[in-house]
Amino acid sequence: MIQMFGSDNGAGIDPNILDAIAKANSVYSVGYGDDPWTLKLNATYSDFFERDCYVFPVPTGTAANALALAALTPPYGQVICHEASHIFTTECGAPEFFSGGARLVPLSDSSGRLSTEAVKSFITEHCAPNRHHMSWSAISITQPTEFGTLYSPDEMAELARLAHEHGMQIHLDGARFANALVALECTPAELTWKSGMDILSFGTTKNGTMNAEAVVVFNETMARDIAFRYKRAGLLASKMRFMSVQLLAYVANGLWKANAERANRYAREIDAIFGDVEDANVIHPVQTNQVFVEIGERSLASLSAAEVPLRRWGKPHASVYRLVTSFQTPADDIEKLRKALVG
Amino acid sequence: MIQMFGSDNGAGIDPNILDAIAKANSVYSVGYGDDPWTLKLNATYSDFFERDCYVFPVPTGTAANALALAALTPPYGQVICHEASHIFTTECGAPEFFSGGARLVPLSDSSGRLSTEAVKSFITEHCAPNRHHMSWSAISITQPTEFGTLYSPDEMAELARLAHEHGMQIHLDGARFANALVALECTPAELTWKSGMDILSFGTTKNGTMNAEAVVVFNETMARDIAFRYKRAGLLASKMRFMSVQLLAYVANGLWKANAERANRYAREIDAIFGDVEDANVIHPVQTNQVFVEIGERSLASLSAAEVPLRRWGKPHASVYRLVTSFQTPADDIEKLRKALVG
Amino acid sequence: MIQMFGSDNGAGIDPNILDAIAKANSVYSVGYGDDPWTLKLNATYSDFFERDCYVFPVPTGTAANALALAALTPPYGQVICHEASHIFTTECGAPEFFSGGARLVPLSDSSGRLSTEAVKSFITEHCAPNRHHMSWSAISITQPTEFGTLYSPDEMAELARLAHEHGMQIHLDGARFANALVALECTPAELTWKSGMDILSFGTTKNGTMNAEAVVVFNETMARDIAFRYKRAGLLASKMRFMSVQLLAYVANGLWKANAERANRYAREIDAIFGDVEDANVIHPVQTNQVFVEIGERSLASLSAAEVPLRRWGKPHASVYRLVTSFQTPADDIEKLRKALVG
Amino acid sequence: MIQMFGSDNGAGIDPNILDAIAKANSVYSVGYGDDPWTLKLNATYSDFFERDCYVFPVPTGTAANALALAALTPPYGQVICHEASHIFTTECGAPEFFSGGARLVPLSDSSGRLSTEAVKSFITEHCAPNRHHMSWSAISITQPTEFGTLYSPDEMAELARLAHEHGMQIHLDGARFANALVALECTPAELTWKSGMDILSFGTTKNGTMNAEAVVVFNETMARDIAFRYKRAGLLASKMRFMSVQLLAYVANGLWKANAERANRYAREIDAIFGDVEDANVIHPVQTNQVFVEIGERSLASLSAAEVPLRRWGKPHASVYRLVTSFQTPADDIEKLRKALVG
Repeated sequence: MIQMFGSDNGAGIDPNILDAIAKANSVYSVGYGDDPWTLKLNATYSDFFERDCYVFPVPTGTAANALALAALTPPYGQVICHEASHIFTTECGAPEFFSGGARLVPLSDSSGRLSTEAVKSFITEHCAPNRHHMSWSAISITQPTEFGTLYSPDEMAELARLAHEHGMQIHLDGARFANALVALECTPAELTWKSGMDILSFGTTKNGTMNAEAVVVFNETMARDIAFRYKRAGLLASKMRFMSVQLLAYVANGLWKANAERANRYAREIDAIFGDVEDANVIHPVQTNQVFVEIGERSLASLSAAEVPLRRWGKPHASVYRLVTSFQTPADDIEKLRKALVG
Repeated sequence: MIQMFGSDNGAGIDPNILDAIAKANSVYSVGYGDDPWTLKLNATYSDFFERDCYVFPVPTGTAANALALAALTPPYGQVICHEASHIFTTECGAPEFFSGGARLVPLSDSSGRLSTEAVKSFITEHCAPNRHHMSWSAISITQPTEFGTLYSPDEMAELARLAHEHGMQIHLDGARFANALVALECTPAELTWKSGMDILSFGTTKNGTMNAEAVVVFNETMARDIAFRYKRAGLLASKMRFMSVQLLAYVANGLWKANAERANRYAREIDAIFGDVEDANVIHPVQTNQVFVEIGERSLASLSAAEVPLRRWGKPHASVYRLVTSFQTPADDIEKLRKALVG
Repeated sequence: MIQMFGSDNGAGIDPNILDAIAKANSVYSVGYGDDPWTLKLNATYSDFFERDCYVFPVPTGTAANALALAALTPPYGQVICHEASHIFTTECGAPEFFSGGARLVPLSDSSGRLSTEAVKSFITEHCAPNRHHMSWSAISITQPTEFGTLYSPDEMAELARLAHEHGMQIHLDGARFANALVALECTPAELTWKSGMDILSFGTTKNGTMNAEAVVVFNETMARDIAFRYKRAGLLASKMRFMSVQLLAYVANGLWKANAERANRYAREIDAIFGDVEDANVIHPVQTNQVFVEIGERSLASLSAAEVPLRRWGKPHASVYRLVTSFQTPADDIEKLRKALVG
Repeated sequence: MIQMFGSDNGAGIDPNILDAIAKANSVYSVGYGDDPWTLKLNATYSDFFERDCYVFPVPTGTAANALALAALTPPYGQVICHEASHIFTTECGAPEFFSGGARLVPLSDSSGRLSTEAVKSFITEHCAPNRHHMSWSAISITQPTEFGTLYSPDEMAELARLAHEHGMQIHLDGARFANALVALECTPAELTWKSGMDILSFGTTKNGTMNAEAVVVFNETMARDIAFRYKRAGLLASKMRFMSVQLLAYVANGLWKANAERANRYAREIDAIFGDVEDANVIHPVQTNQVFVEIGERSLASLSAAEVPLRRWGKPHASVYRLVTSFQTPADDIEKLRKALVG
């Protein structure tokens, strides 16, 4: 039985995206990104981000993160991140691979967010210039975090300042970036370069595309470096146009926004359901499209009886479950959950 | 003006492939390859290749080649290839990147094929065991070659024997593998493991899919190693099912075969047209879907007058052009070419 | 003013070692290890370790460790170590570099030793087979530890069993290996392969040579792999004989033993001195040639007045100092320390 | 029987160097390059090169070259070199390793020297900006070349200009740099930064030290980058002072010059001997301390009868021998050679 709310990767392709692919398929074109759609990407995203930027379409979030980090750190550099960050836990060493051996430095914080204080005290303690140690090259943060929580733009800017003061750069893993944008009611500019971010992993797959993430770069020199790393990592697709049209359709007509709002709304509904359940405890504020909840024996029995299989997360406690919503979450599923739990 | 016959990457997505994607989109599923389509890949391809094999879907041929080579060579190894091979000329150092610094050793041969004699004499001359030199780890061949020419199964087996005798392994770059299969009337087994190939880059994109190549491995130990390298290279797609259904549809109902036969036939037609042109000279035997042809001033003028823009290849002579056909080559284009050249 | 007891690297070259170098200098020879001294290394060390082994002379402990680890882990592997281990703290990412991007996993333990329990619970928690995570390839331990403490041969064997049960290998960083041998009254065999160690960084520089560490391998296949990595890392010296004679002289006539015993004895004397000081607290058992001691204000003032500059270690508390003895520690220095502290 | 004139690596340690080591051994000091000798290196070599420079002592020429190249090329860059260059033929892929996968591009030229014309035509042909290809990052030349021949300062400057015009940097492999200096009667400045060289592998081992080469950098930013790569490659020696005193003694009192002059003179004498031999043919101009000579059957028989074993080089013909002289070449050996050949 497939888990309900197992992941937003379980969602399919938004019909608008599939249409865009089909449309691009009606004409003969050229390969390796010299097609008219790919050539329009930078301009379209420069509008979206209100600043000149360079867009590198990639098929996975892991590739996006690793490529971005490789542009920020020399092989002998260290990248500060949260211990729960995707780059540290679930990318099989891709950042180490793409960077040629840089080291990730995981810090703890129960909110899923790097706190400026923690980073600062860590840097103070370990960042003394010394020829025996790796250098300090970057901070990587995730927005929304792995726990679905959010940094305010001010918190982001503070971390960026801290990074830049210490000669580091800062990367934003935005696997669910749209969910943060709508939750914070911010513009893409406000949550990236206006908050000091140097480079962005711009996720779209979880929010409606088929397989199109993007590395978004706000600096031409960095973009030139990445162009080589990009091809060298086997990421330049021969029929690139079918990735590019996804990225174009995603930001056209507010598709990203509508989809993210729907996903976030579903999560709030689930949050509300658990609020009415005595032996359930939502352990992180539900700010985007993820709900982490501790569930008691009684409710688990009810879920089981109602055939509502949830995904046990198991961290930090065995009884914690993770529910993720998406633009395609069936309204029925939420109803089933409600019935199982609160009747 | 878009070049005619510029590349088989100019073709779009075969309708059968797009259908398969749309069909997989009608149901909710799970991510990262735990979906039912991906789970069927190994079995389906084991049938196709008449032997247990392990399939790793990747978005580009460069990723396929680099991933495959990384499994064959230690970082201190050398990989013998043809000087025109894609891995050497057009992958921006991906094999070096994925392998951690292995070296490509390019040999020359006017046919685009590595000859056993050339490899043998090179090995004899350079392969003395000596702690100052890199080791010898692999041979990589392309079938059909970059010039559209073919190795016979016997020639492949001879190279494989040579490799294995010297403790090397052998990789087959099959970016246009289907075109070779139909041209040689061989089974997939005959052109891979039965000819001694250790690993295959199985190309499908040029022959009808959207973005799905595969590394095919015939050895479980190697597959376990590749599984890690695969994720670490950012190649494990979250909505993997949309790549897997392409690979499944490609080998179902002989789609690969019909498409490749069509492409090869178009190339033969173009070959025949040039055969009737006095100042044109086809410089490699047209065995698959590529035509390399030297074109004289007079014919170039005719092409220009008729608005038939061809792609100047420029190698080995400035007047050499490359024409590539695909399953989608418009019959009209061939007619236009014929009219422009032979009236 | 140079710190007293600052490090055993402050010691010079043992006269026996310098003699050996001078003697080898009296004849013309051949380069790159084809000289008679280097050719004798494997046999001499096979006697020393009572088992066939392969010796790779290297100029630094960092090179020894990184080279050894590169032979134990694929680029996508993880190496469990102590958080205070030299490979993690003070080698500027050399293990990541030599291994092509493997990851170090630092565990805590106040004794400086990895406990089997900690490793076991960590593996249990994190070592589930899962394509998203790096593999588990090795454990690295330091004997004596960075805190001068010791593993018993049984503890080593237990860790080795744990490693091997999980398909890992185990590396021993023996930067001060001789100090452990004499402290534990063990044979080299007992503290290496008989305890299950797969590979050893054999340090000699701190105990009397000029610049000669060695990677000692007990397995021919591994030695063949390392031979290439060795040259490729720029470690094969042209006048190798001057490194090899150091390694030969070091194990001849018990030089290693006499020197290590002297160093350990000095440390015990220092330990005894601090035992008589009221406001000083030796924080790790003094088992080899290092003393870690918390010193109070009053004693610090006495040391300062007597012009006895010690090296502040600063970990885990600001008031912790580290004193290291060597075969060349001046008896006078210990006397000065005694006078300053206990009058 | 040891080959006569087999290599300058067969020479031992110059007595002045051994004295310097012994002297530094008489006092207690500090490790890892914080000793007074190492701290003097930059100033001493800045005098020697008449310009601020940064000196990194390394134990081998391979480490020097690989470290230097890693500072000049990104992992996706290409380094143009001569096909006979040590970095390409005899370093087991160290440049690929240190650079993280850059590619060496070997060009041919019978003199052992890269000609500006060859480099220029190669760049013109291959250096078109194109996202599919590796970038062009550096040229590496050897002075004197592997054939003992020399670049004039003008030729060096021309290559440097060419490099810089194309956004590349230029590395000088000076494994036998002193032999070039005395042969050309140039200052160290003239053969390095005044000729446009960006970085130098400064060899001293073949000319009298025990194991001390140096990477010499003329640019502070580059030096900061190298400092990390240096430690990370395991090159920062704990008892660094014993390498540094070698490098100090080498440039003090003209030791480098006297030794190189002697070696070059011996080579000229050997050249003269072969000039008198009818069936011998010196195939490269003898400009430094290497003689490459084709020897006929008759003379080979004489050498064999006289028990004068030479080192067969075997390239480009089987009958080519290489004789290398050094500061320690026994006068007797030359006499023996003369007697064997010309009586």
